[in-house]
Amino acid sequence: MQTLLLNADDVDENARMDRVIDAVRGAFTAYERGNAKMPAKSYIDLPEYNGDFRSMPAYLDVRTEDTAEDAGWDAAGIKWVNVHTDNPADHDLPTVMGTMIYSDPETAFPLAILDGTTLTMKRTGAAAAVATDELAVPDATSLGIVGAGVQSYTQLEAIAAVRDIDEVVISDLDEERVADFIDAFEGRFDVRAGSIAEAGHCDVLSTVTPVESPIVGPDDVGDHTHVNAMGADAEGKHELADDLLLNATVVIDDHEQCTHSGEINVPYAAGLLTDDDIYGEIGEIVVGNRPGRTGTGSEGDNAGSGAGIDGVTVFDSTGLAIQDVAAARVVYEQADDNDNGYPFDLLGLGE
Amino acid sequence: MQTLLLNADDVDENARMDRVIDAVRGAFTAYERGNAKMPAKSYIDLPEYNGDFRSMPAYLDVRTEDTAEDAGWDAAGIKWVNVHTDNPADHDLPTVMGTMIYSDPETAFPLAILDGTTLTMKRTGAAAAVATDELAVPDATSLGIVGAGVQSYTQLEAIAAVRDIDEVVISDLDEERVADFIDAFEGRFDVRAGSIAEAGHCDVLSTVTPVESPIVGPDDVGDHTHVNAMGADAEGKHELADDLLLNATVVIDDHEQCTHSGEINVPYAAGLLTDDDIYGEIGEIVVGNRPGRTGTGSEGDNAGSGAGIDGVTVFDSTGLAIQDVAAARVVYEQADDNDNGYPFDLLGLGE
Repeated sequence: MQTLLLNADDVDENARMDRVIDAVRGAFTAYERGNAKMPAKSYIDLPEYNGDFRSMPAYLDVRTEDTAEDAGWDAAGIKWVNVHTDNPADHDLPTVMGTMIYSDPETAFPLAILDGTTLTMKRTGAAAAVATDELAVPDATSLGIVGAGVQSYTQLEAIAAVRDIDEVVISDLDEERVADFIDAFEGRFDVRAGSIAEAGHCDVLSTVTPVESPIVGPDDVGDHTHVNAMGADAEGKHELADDLLLNATVVIDDHEQCTHSGEINVPYAAGLLTDDDIYGEIGEIVVGNRPGRTGTGSEGDNAGSGAGIDGVTVFDSTGLAIQDVAAARVVYEQADDNDNGYPFDLLGLGE
Repeated sequence: MQTLLLNADDVDENARMDRVIDAVRGAFTAYERGNAKMPAKSYIDLPEYNGDFRSMPAYLDVRTEDTAEDAGWDAAGIKWVNVHTDNPADHDLPTVMGTMIYSDPETAFPLAILDGTTLTMKRTGAAAAVATDELAVPDATSLGIVGAGVQSYTQLEAIAAVRDIDEVVISDLDEERVADFIDAFEGRFDVRAGSIAEAGHCDVLSTVTPVESPIVGPDDVGDHTHVNAMGADAEGKHELADDLLLNATVVIDDHEQCTHSGEINVPYAAGLLTDDDIYGEIGEIVVGNRPGRTGTGSEGDNAGSGAGIDGVTVFDSTGLAIQDVAAARVVYEQADDNDNGYPFDLLGLGE
């Protein structure tokens, strides 16, 4: 029995974004319907190293779901991931590194060990795409991105899979990052550098920065912009001003994670934003228990006219362990089909 | 940056037992002194497959401890392990399989990925050895083992490192297992098959069975036998009769784990055995906060004569994540020194 080792390149090549989006949609569905098991993220804080470790185990079962295109599977695994802020400056290493063990739930055999860093970018992009599909105007053609770091690439890659994106505005103080981003995409999209307000006036905006003071205010976004707030992943971090959040329809991925470490955690802790200001969880919308956006926005739909939401929407994404497991399955299956990766008899079970 | 892959053979070859025992002693010390971080084991129960997954993350710091021979290190990692009872019969796979990620705490880089199955056997043997060293008579020469499965081998290997074991009695209903065990050790020890009572009248007894009804009664052990109760790892399992436990000095590895899933969990849940019947945690004895056994037993020491314990002692071992991390460090360092294992650029960080 061999465990398939999948390095960063293998994950990148085999994480076909349309399938990852579909798998993550399936994961949100399974979670909403009680067909997932996801113990709380467990933290080991190491203040001495200005870092922490997080373990994210999960199981999900989409065998009875009809939302996943290739339904009929269940999957299990764990991601071991960290945030060590001093890594780039002190050790020439990324702030965040992940290792994923993907296991057969029936026997627990470790089918694959994957680079969890690349996997995280893919499944995070996919989550934004699922939310965009439910919450952005149907005819969205423009995407703004604030923050041109590693996560920005999969935001565009994923969101372009659910909307016909033509125009892309990338905003970052680091000109080299902006140039790299434009280089990567200028053949496929009409992509240019712009201000935060220019990015925010696109049909869709993704924010992927680690800031602790909001950088996007209510005037920085359009009347019907859908915002994917991806950056906040710890207490004290937020990217959007309180009055932007309070005047938007706010959708979260998980109540416990979002109120503790997501985009809403700061105003929530301060009592400025309460449960009444949260529209619902993305899973509720995906399964149809709550309507997503139905109007086109540009046609001037009236928010009070019935089902569906309009105006500015915000998706607060903290990242769930079930997303990692779902994405790992896509990568493993595809790599296995393509004979990619390195089979290794880790457990010494022979043939 | 390469991650070192260490398969079952690599772990076996590089887990030098004297060093693993020393590292596990260091782990118990660090835990007792508050220099370890060990979130509760997190379970994913899958009744449909008659199995479960367990994630066991930990960090430990023995830089200020003097009990570890090679003090001056800290270490972090996670073991992802399962218990799937139907595996042997239905899938020709082991009931328990483990995968260990061993990480640098300073940067979180995954230094090694190890076969966690072999590692578990080694660190479990090492825990029994640490307890035996503190609780068995100093001049112990005989070891009984009840249960001739995979864990029995490292019990002998480890305990022989802390006592001059000459005579070994192995007890199991499965004659083939008994023969295999004798074959493996008959050159080095005076090893023979025997009844449970014959095994139990040795100076040291290790029980390594998964039974749910006790198989060792008070008459099955000698007056000063030290018992390592290694088998119970889940609610409902126990190997020793209640009246054996109640008349012995009981030492545990961790209060929460032992009372929920260790040897004492059944009588504890029934209220037959209470906290008053627990002498202490192994860490307290290792650091000297509570005396271990001081008499030789065979010289007829009086239990009431002062410091130290006498009579029958029991170590309830459930297995702690810090043991895995400590053992993984030994294996990684040794393998790295010997150029063993397979370096692999999992995270795509290049040279």
